[in-house]
Amino acid sequence: MFRLRVDDHVMIAHSLAGEFFGPAQNLHGATLAITATFERQGLDEHGVVMDIGVATQLLSEVLEPLRYQNLDEHPDFAEKISTTEVICQHIALQLASALPEGHGLQALEVAAEEHPRARGMVRIELSPA
Amino acid sequence: MFRLRVDDHVMIAHSLAGEFFGPAQNLHGATLAITATFERQGLDEHGVVMDIGVATQLLSEVLEPLRYQNLDEHPDFAEKISTTEVICQHIALQLASALPEGHGLQALEVAAEEHPRARGMVRIELSPA
Amino acid sequence: MFRLRVDDHVMIAHSLAGEFFGPAQNLHGATLAITATFERQGLDEHGVVMDIGVATQLLSEVLEPLRYQNLDEHPDFAEKISTTEVICQHIALQLASALPEGHGLQALEVAAEEHPRARGMVRIELSPA
Amino acid sequence: MFRLRVDDHVMIAHSLAGEFFGPAQNLHGATLAITATFERQGLDEHGVVMDIGVATQLLSEVLEPLRYQNLDEHPDFAEKISTTEVICQHIALQLASALPEGHGLQALEVAAEEHPRARGMVRIELSPA
Amino acid sequence: MFRLRVDDHVMIAHSLAGEFFGPAQNLHGATLAITATFERQGLDEHGVVMDIGVATQLLSEVLEPLRYQNLDEHPDFAEKISTTEVICQHIALQLASALPEGHGLQALEVAAEEHPRARGMVRIELSPA
Amino acid sequence: MFRLRVDDHVMIAHSLAGEFFGPAQNLHGATLAITATFERQGLDEHGVVMDIGVATQLLSEVLEPLRYQNLDEHPDFAEKISTTEVICQHIALQLASALPEGHGLQALEVAAEEHPRARGMVRIELSPA
Repeated sequence: MFRLRVDDHVMIAHSLAGEFFGPAQNLHGATLAITATFERQGLDEHGVVMDIGVATQLLSEVLEPLRYQNLDEHPDFAEKISTTEVICQHIALQLASALPEGHGLQALEVAAEEHPRARGMVRIELSPA
Repeated sequence: MFRLRVDDHVMIAHSLAGEFFGPAQNLHGATLAITATFERQGLDEHGVVMDIGVATQLLSEVLEPLRYQNLDEHPDFAEKISTTEVICQHIALQLASALPEGHGLQALEVAAEEHPRARGMVRIELSPA
Repeated sequence: MFRLRVDDHVMIAHSLAGEFFGPAQNLHGATLAITATFERQGLDEHGVVMDIGVATQLLSEVLEPLRYQNLDEHPDFAEKISTTEVICQHIALQLASALPEGHGLQALEVAAEEHPRARGMVRIELSPA
Repeated sequence: MFRLRVDDHVMIAHSLAGEFFGPAQNLHGATLAITATFERQGLDEHGVVMDIGVATQLLSEVLEPLRYQNLDEHPDFAEKISTTEVICQHIALQLASALPEGHGLQALEVAAEEHPRARGMVRIELSPA
Repeated sequence: MFRLRVDDHVMIAHSLAGEFFGPAQNLHGATLAITATFERQGLDEHGVVMDIGVATQLLSEVLEPLRYQNLDEHPDFAEKISTTEVICQHIALQLASALPEGHGLQALEVAAEEHPRARGMVRIELSPA
Repeated sequence: MFRLRVDDHVMIAHSLAGEFFGPAQNLHGATLAITATFERQGLDEHGVVMDIGVATQLLSEVLEPLRYQNLDEHPDFAEKISTTEVICQHIALQLASALPEGHGLQALEVAAEEHPRARGMVRIELSPA
């Protein structure tokens, strides 16, 4: 089993509603250092999981609508609490939809370091196309 | 599947008995940079694996009895060799016991970087409570 | 010459007014990974630049009023643009004021990594007290 | 389940033939920061996955023939495209062959960070010897 | 005194002629993780050392002619040994020439991590324009 | 001005006598991740500050007598408190003595990260030999 991981980041504002979240109920913000990991059983005909340039471009495009945004007013998080885990899931689902035909991948992982001591992550299984 | 990872560290002295361990038979020490990873199939009603503050607090409490200790004289390692792997297992079991009722987690991972070029890790499966 | 460096972080929202700042004019946010460096010509009677616990506590107290805040509405940034450099300067001046009598330090540096590829820093000289 | 991870690196030149690889078709090079992860169901009689010194030595020996080489002219990559993933697989297979009798391991992972924003990885299952 | 640091990287092949360089006489390669640090006595009218976007763009443009190149055949290193220090100096001088009029900077630093355990650096003083 | 930085680490036990040090009065330990930085006005005839291999070897030799030691019983720290700053100074002075004739260096810096959130450092000026 093979993996390719690429990195990017976004800087967003948000607040987390509900007593559960303590001081994070305030409008504050985060730099989310994002890693996207693409997993494939075997390598493709070029000897890679996926072209690094394509993977980097794909992640960048998915992150584009989030850059410099206030997620409290962002349509994609209208009915949601924008926790790190929920943001990871959103990015992973967007990445999955954006994969090219015949990608051959079997799983995707998206992780977000929200500060130097905490990181959220999601893994989703794919039906190899 | 979702994960949350939080970080902390402890500074301990110990020696590893047995020729197998070469110079580490001497009384020496280590900073163990610890990461605890909590894993859950789906997110809870707050859209998280676990509250980051709770996870950080839990890890800190479990590490408390080890901080600034000589493990050669520590009761929890009385009959054990305190290798990095054994320390990870000890921390993971302590974390598992300290989890709140109804945590919904399915696995725990504890890793310890003992120096910039070596890291041990343990994973334990949990019966979701 | 000796230095001691300790780390902490804050998560803030803000916007940067003026065309100069492009998309950062939007309300967004940042995790600022902060390092404070204390500099001393020689060591004190305990063989240190400063007690690490004291340094860590001092930095934490200075950061406290910024944690989970929207700097656009924060009194300390009322007449200022809260760029990374300006935030560093604010923290450094607060740290300098909070130093204990007879600290013996000759300089302070505060750096903030605002995302994995950019970091601001300020250095201020102190009159050793 | 337990893991031990050790690190090393190699500095190689290579080119990647085929339009697919864009500018990487040029003869260029890379520092590959390598991590090898050894996995074992339980710990051995010394309370470890594997001796750290042995693991580090094993990885170093496997990397030796690649250090300061041009992979375009290296016999081990004669019929292959030396992508990061293919190099990881090569190292993992070499490590697997070099494992001592009775190692008790169940899997090996080799990862290579080729630049600060991209990393390849392979995992191979082992028949515990 | 204020600083701004931005990061990028290049992947190059080269060889270092002369017995002094031992195995690095072979044609091999490196990923050079580059940081450029811009230094200014006070902040400009926008409260920054320099716009981060401009700094990042400037560094990227200076690195462009080096990306995926074999420095043994690169005109800029025709009469030179392309050691890490020499490459840093080359990048710093190129950056200095590319600075906009009225930059107000007093120094530039360029560092290159050539592998996880070694880094070269150059500092050049500027005549504030 | 040019710099070269190389890295290594040591794992030691020690205790810090005196109420000032709080819980660090206990016998405990630390992994000290060490960086040694060599500074030179201009480059030498090979276009380097110093050969990386020589610098790495020099640092390793200076650290050798400290590896896996209890500094409370180490002759080099007999009359001293082995704080991070004092250990840095010890290593820097040993490095300075071990420099080859005609090294041309003007300063040395030794830093030690004692845990992920604290680092000590010393800088000593050299009389270029």
